[in-house]
Amino acid sequence: MSTSPYCVSVPLRWSDMDAYGHVNNVQFLRLLEDARVTGFREWFGGDAGDRSLLDEGVLVARHEIEYIAPLTFRHAPIAVEMWVTKMGGAGFDIGYDVRDPEDVGDGHYARAETSLVLYDFAQSRPRRIHPDEKAILEGLRGEQVPFRWRGR
Amino acid sequence: MSTSPYCVSVPLRWSDMDAYGHVNNVQFLRLLEDARVTGFREWFGGDAGDRSLLDEGVLVARHEIEYIAPLTFRHAPIAVEMWVTKMGGAGFDIGYDVRDPEDVGDGHYARAETSLVLYDFAQSRPRRIHPDEKAILEGLRGEQVPFRWRGR
Amino acid sequence: MSTSPYCVSVPLRWSDMDAYGHVNNVQFLRLLEDARVTGFREWFGGDAGDRSLLDEGVLVARHEIEYIAPLTFRHAPIAVEMWVTKMGGAGFDIGYDVRDPEDVGDGHYARAETSLVLYDFAQSRPRRIHPDEKAILEGLRGEQVPFRWRGR
Amino acid sequence: MSTSPYCVSVPLRWSDMDAYGHVNNVQFLRLLEDARVTGFREWFGGDAGDRSLLDEGVLVARHEIEYIAPLTFRHAPIAVEMWVTKMGGAGFDIGYDVRDPEDVGDGHYARAETSLVLYDFAQSRPRRIHPDEKAILEGLRGEQVPFRWRGR
Repeated sequence: MSTSPYCVSVPLRWSDMDAYGHVNNVQFLRLLEDARVTGFREWFGGDAGDRSLLDEGVLVARHEIEYIAPLTFRHAPIAVEMWVTKMGGAGFDIGYDVRDPEDVGDGHYARAETSLVLYDFAQSRPRRIHPDEKAILEGLRGEQVPFRWRGR
Repeated sequence: MSTSPYCVSVPLRWSDMDAYGHVNNVQFLRLLEDARVTGFREWFGGDAGDRSLLDEGVLVARHEIEYIAPLTFRHAPIAVEMWVTKMGGAGFDIGYDVRDPEDVGDGHYARAETSLVLYDFAQSRPRRIHPDEKAILEGLRGEQVPFRWRGR
Repeated sequence: MSTSPYCVSVPLRWSDMDAYGHVNNVQFLRLLEDARVTGFREWFGGDAGDRSLLDEGVLVARHEIEYIAPLTFRHAPIAVEMWVTKMGGAGFDIGYDVRDPEDVGDGHYARAETSLVLYDFAQSRPRRIHPDEKAILEGLRGEQVPFRWRGR
Repeated sequence: MSTSPYCVSVPLRWSDMDAYGHVNNVQFLRLLEDARVTGFREWFGGDAGDRSLLDEGVLVARHEIEYIAPLTFRHAPIAVEMWVTKMGGAGFDIGYDVRDPEDVGDGHYARAETSLVLYDFAQSRPRRIHPDEKAILEGLRGEQVPFRWRGR
């Protein structure tokens, strides 16, 4: 991929920490949800796009996540880099890196991937991807997520 | 695997549902955390075992989850079947099926896997598995999780 | 009040603890929500009652809570005692005590009160209390919640 | 009060909504926690202040909240106005209004109050307020929270 991945700034909450004093492993998935909500709105354009992809909308079919380093709450948001790792006729996969923003540090906390299925909530059934959605997503294509555990 | 997988009963909360009216995909990971907390206590024996594996303790290194059917809040707990899919010298993997309890129905909502690393919090470093922990876990060995997406 | 307050058993989650290692103050309100969901179902009778008060249903208009002692996660559920502190034509107030179950200890962790407004979601407007609902609630009447801060 | 209340911008999360499609009543308390974490850092000065009031730190002794209008998730943060309603030797009370930011609208969603106790976590006991903390808080004094339910 010659282009930089898309980057979303996601605020932490103090309550994301668990009794170990680290951002809880489950809350990382919550941060990725936040990143998708923000990213999809920006990719697909304002309120209309919001409606088309989140309300019509999308279903999560699968998550995979590897934790790289512990993350503690701080006031600076974290940076979630997002890109498209796979395109299908009725869904697509998103890869993520959870990192420090460039001006804060070079921490790398997690890598992850989510498989999404397009869904027509009004008709309660999966739907085909629209050509204009596909064009947007093709512009966001990137490398496969280099999960360490897959190489075991 | 000739033995039945270990089964933990996990209560739902009304707040596990999101704005779509389904148990949120991230909350499934929370239910798996609950299942581990209960299961580890029973596997490793009361408060002492609790201390040895959860406080000394374990770190989550990786999650993978596939969603099979939507789950709505109900008063009956869900059943989380858990078994060991991989043993290493300093960690192990847990497979899960999230299902209806036998007396409630035959719904199958998700399959998942978590990789855990044993950690000595007092000394802030990974630790080797104890022989008695290993013996317990060997008795809980089961099949690989049949993730559909791995076959793509 | 001559009768004992109604008591609901509410399971804790390990994740209810925050970075201080205590059940987080906000999560206490979540436990009260769980207690209402269970209690209302039992008070108003199975699925039909569930539908009449939670889906038709009720809106939270106000909470007040005082924290008495810190609570740490444990496997035993906590006991939430609930009773009716006020009846109106379109709503009612619930008082709570969050305690150890009798067979676990005598800890008293919080006292609280919630004001609820009956709401007809189908018609998007507040509704009057039904006579049969009123009769049930009258049987659950109890003392005012003895908030310490009100006496300041 | 002649001065304007202090205002903190608090981002919402999509997951703050419950199955009714509104920001859940319990999550409002979470938003207030976020506002305190941000506000205290700004009031008491950077990391040092953060340490003195949140790590040494403070305990929540009481919450009271009234819900005024339903809030739906949106990308714009909400505005939490905060001021000091009471000063004691070992604690203080914070009043809040949860509103739309000025450039977004004039919605008013909730009013609330939290009683905080200063706590020395190192010594596990309440502590007296420092003169410099008191001076800062005195500059943030405001009116009592006009709870409707108190007038009943």
